[in-house]
Amino acid sequence: MDTTAILLLHCPDRQGIISEITKFITDNQGNIVYLDQYVDKCEGMFFMRIEWELNNFLVPREKIRDYMDTLYAQRYQMEFSLYFSDKRPRMAIFVSKMSHCLYDLLARWKTGEFACDIPCIISNHEDLRYVADQFGIPFHVWSIEKDHSNKAEVEAAELELLHKENVTFIVLARYMQIISDDMIAEYPHHIINIHHSFLPAFIGAKPYHQAFERGVKIIGATSHYVTADLDAGPIIEQDVVRITHKDTPDSLVLKGKDLEKIVLSRAVSKHIERKVLTYKNKTIIFS
Amino acid sequence: MDTTAILLLHCPDRQGIISEITKFITDNQGNIVYLDQYVDKCEGMFFMRIEWELNNFLVPREKIRDYMDTLYAQRYQMEFSLYFSDKRPRMAIFVSKMSHCLYDLLARWKTGEFACDIPCIISNHEDLRYVADQFGIPFHVWSIEKDHSNKAEVEAAELELLHKENVTFIVLARYMQIISDDMIAEYPHHIINIHHSFLPAFIGAKPYHQAFERGVKIIGATSHYVTADLDAGPIIEQDVVRITHKDTPDSLVLKGKDLEKIVLSRAVSKHIERKVLTYKNKTIIFS
Amino acid sequence: MDTTAILLLHCPDRQGIISEITKFITDNQGNIVYLDQYVDKCEGMFFMRIEWELNNFLVPREKIRDYMDTLYAQRYQMEFSLYFSDKRPRMAIFVSKMSHCLYDLLARWKTGEFACDIPCIISNHEDLRYVADQFGIPFHVWSIEKDHSNKAEVEAAELELLHKENVTFIVLARYMQIISDDMIAEYPHHIINIHHSFLPAFIGAKPYHQAFERGVKIIGATSHYVTADLDAGPIIEQDVVRITHKDTPDSLVLKGKDLEKIVLSRAVSKHIERKVLTYKNKTIIFS
Amino acid sequence: MDTTAILLLHCPDRQGIISEITKFITDNQGNIVYLDQYVDKCEGMFFMRIEWELNNFLVPREKIRDYMDTLYAQRYQMEFSLYFSDKRPRMAIFVSKMSHCLYDLLARWKTGEFACDIPCIISNHEDLRYVADQFGIPFHVWSIEKDHSNKAEVEAAELELLHKENVTFIVLARYMQIISDDMIAEYPHHIINIHHSFLPAFIGAKPYHQAFERGVKIIGATSHYVTADLDAGPIIEQDVVRITHKDTPDSLVLKGKDLEKIVLSRAVSKHIERKVLTYKNKTIIFS
Repeated sequence: MDTTAILLLHCPDRQGIISEITKFITDNQGNIVYLDQYVDKCEGMFFMRIEWELNNFLVPREKIRDYMDTLYAQRYQMEFSLYFSDKRPRMAIFVSKMSHCLYDLLARWKTGEFACDIPCIISNHEDLRYVADQFGIPFHVWSIEKDHSNKAEVEAAELELLHKENVTFIVLARYMQIISDDMIAEYPHHIINIHHSFLPAFIGAKPYHQAFERGVKIIGATSHYVTADLDAGPIIEQDVVRITHKDTPDSLVLKGKDLEKIVLSRAVSKHIERKVLTYKNKTIIFS
Repeated sequence: MDTTAILLLHCPDRQGIISEITKFITDNQGNIVYLDQYVDKCEGMFFMRIEWELNNFLVPREKIRDYMDTLYAQRYQMEFSLYFSDKRPRMAIFVSKMSHCLYDLLARWKTGEFACDIPCIISNHEDLRYVADQFGIPFHVWSIEKDHSNKAEVEAAELELLHKENVTFIVLARYMQIISDDMIAEYPHHIINIHHSFLPAFIGAKPYHQAFERGVKIIGATSHYVTADLDAGPIIEQDVVRITHKDTPDSLVLKGKDLEKIVLSRAVSKHIERKVLTYKNKTIIFS
Repeated sequence: MDTTAILLLHCPDRQGIISEITKFITDNQGNIVYLDQYVDKCEGMFFMRIEWELNNFLVPREKIRDYMDTLYAQRYQMEFSLYFSDKRPRMAIFVSKMSHCLYDLLARWKTGEFACDIPCIISNHEDLRYVADQFGIPFHVWSIEKDHSNKAEVEAAELELLHKENVTFIVLARYMQIISDDMIAEYPHHIINIHHSFLPAFIGAKPYHQAFERGVKIIGATSHYVTADLDAGPIIEQDVVRITHKDTPDSLVLKGKDLEKIVLSRAVSKHIERKVLTYKNKTIIFS
Repeated sequence: MDTTAILLLHCPDRQGIISEITKFITDNQGNIVYLDQYVDKCEGMFFMRIEWELNNFLVPREKIRDYMDTLYAQRYQMEFSLYFSDKRPRMAIFVSKMSHCLYDLLARWKTGEFACDIPCIISNHEDLRYVADQFGIPFHVWSIEKDHSNKAEVEAAELELLHKENVTFIVLARYMQIISDDMIAEYPHHIINIHHSFLPAFIGAKPYHQAFERGVKIIGATSHYVTADLDAGPIIEQDVVRITHKDTPDSLVLKGKDLEKIVLSRAVSKHIERKVLTYKNKTIIFS
């Protein structure tokens, strides 16, 4: 496949936006390979993902952003992101002690399912170094004190590594620590977490035990972007599995692990493909 | 099918309970047609549903309760309920203005799917009288004032009717009023409600709007026994349906209606079949 | 809501179709309230559903078809259907003896969920006349002989009624007869059937018994347009429910009935909203 | 946990079997930790899984089989299997070129989710040797000629290895070869396959392409025991995922891979826990 440009945008809904932008691309001999749009009637907002081949495109790639800005963004109060398919996202994975999500991510990446690089895996424990080693990915450990006394220091070191490695987004693959607001601010809507419940039910610690106590008949998992509010960021993907009164907290954990890894990997996949757009704490997921 | 006795019981788990009770029934020439049991290891509790034909059973039907009590209940600290299949439950349905759950219940009842009687439908509005009329069921309206000033009075009248009609359980088929503690106390774990969210998410009013605001990717419905705590009683059944960013509050309501009626009817069906056992705010659902 | 025009079209994919058509509508002061499009890369085909308000639209409503034909259809090898929101579809329901799908359709229709008229219900048995009576809809019975000796005659009478009542589409709500090719030819892709299996598994008679024999862990239901090939027409909607070894043929029938009615009603709803497009024995379902 | 004995049995249904067997275990001071039973009314058959601690059990472990045989099996025409929890199953995995199922199995095994040994992975291609190496498991390759001229020879070599390694069951983790009847006869109902469709739909080759051609709205995966009839053995587990007209054969493959690995691993887990009983080409799955 040729290199493509990917444009994600949103603006107040007005007639003619699609036709203008598709005309601009077509007139400049860009071959559109993907177009999906969505109008949120409640908010009066227009959202679009459009992708075209750069091969014969008359506008030089380094000028596209300027053109978009001048021609449309200002006129339509448009916000947009522009990506190029040959510029691969760089993912850092944060883990603690459980391996199921990490294995699932790495197995997909190894077989080419994720078009991204993984320059580093970061943890507060040594436990999963062997998994990183199996896949030949550098594994960095910074231990966080129980009283969090060194947390700022650890995050500073982590951020230094993330910057050095040009990490573009972070995946918390059952990382059991809360990320500070400062770190979130460095990666706004670019940190993906997996929470082991169908949010907003069972926010916080030990959701399977909460679910067991409540006697629910269905458990779930939720992948979302991390924001300053705990477990309250924009939801990317959720899924559930049916349980019965015969399930114990242990069997819930086991069943939940399958949900968690699939739901997290689906979200990571959508993010890598630049098919997630966020607006007002919600996501638009293009198919 | 012959008339059967149905025994639902629970007690602290001890070896030999199953074999004793099955032996008692078999020795008295009862033909066991259903047996399912479950041990909750966490609580150390034993639960059983057993059903046998009364045809040649040597213990007279009116003595079975005494025998159970004397032989087992006291010895094993057992609590039990005893039902006979020819004594049909009598269901009262409470509704407000939405017809989907009511139609689903009545259509099933009409075709014999529910082995129960429906002596009355009760509402605080006239809106659904035509549905009751379609099925020839008495429809009673007691209007509740906005300030709830006449609520105690209305509930007293309702209870009088329920008693007169020998109602054994109540179904709140999208009845938008809160039932008072006094009325709940008259029908403990015998009032079934449908809540239009996957509880414990979105407790209280307008759950679809809450779901829309939160941006979830899945919505649900929950049927549960009503207790004094709002939307917090033992859950009988839940189900969910996948939604997307394209859904509006209106389309959530529409999709949710299908969930609500199916989830409520499944719970009602299990209750009528005496396959629900409650313990410590949870349900054991026999299959 | 104002009266709208709804255009469903497909043609070989070429740049600029969206922008041309949206420009045509916008230039003529039509307010677009819905636009969704899809490109099938394998087939090289473009599909679109577009809906706009007729209020201030400069092209007279009776001329729109001509304009579309002249301006676009010939040039783009386009096939299209044009509907107006104030011209309600007219649905005939065919039934045999089971009431669950019929009740579900009529209950939705009664509450305004289906924007269609139902001029008649047709059956080969008297069994469900009482349901039609409950909803005040004319019920017509033509008995079909076991040897089908009078089938041509019956279908001729049915077609006469359908034409007289200006029926625009037919719903087979567990109608247990096979529709002849002649009748199908009168309503191409306008007869919706519900088959009680996840097609293409268990084609033909008694699918639940087939499912029981095979020992599947999931059963399903499929709504599809009827074509000359039995149970092989374009699939509109499917859904499934989990079962276990404890299920009997009877319990499969019971669980399946819930699937059937929901899956059929979803298909009917999409059809009424003109959100189904068929191409080469498949459906495109607009959301 | 103490070592336990696990008894799986079935016989024609008769009163008193449960009570006799539980009494036998209890009288001999065995502590029952699991009991589940099921009566198939259609077949008139009784099925049970019972597990008890051997700690203080008065019958020596090597005599239990004899006792069962003498006391019950002959009298009740009972067939039974007896396992001990400290005798771990030994699993051989057969693979071809796709890694997703293999990774999922090995990642679970590595974290202790599967209480089994994996003495060998067998393939007809070198492609996945690196995965076996990552987990330190011997990888054996026997290339099968396109004309299958050496197939008998290869299977003989494979069987020799399986015997040498005391393999107790085989998992075909997307192994693209058909197993010969001779090999199946060596492991009756002990070879688990994953088929990438909801059987019995889309038997045979390229099921996702078949699904795409048919235009289904749901795809599935099925794990089953291999028998001499292709894709027709007893089904252990199935699951499905919803698709739309937007899916391509490629995206079906991608979505299907998630189903396949989860459905296969669930079946393997149930098999390892000795919770699968087969009867007349169906499975009873204990929970």
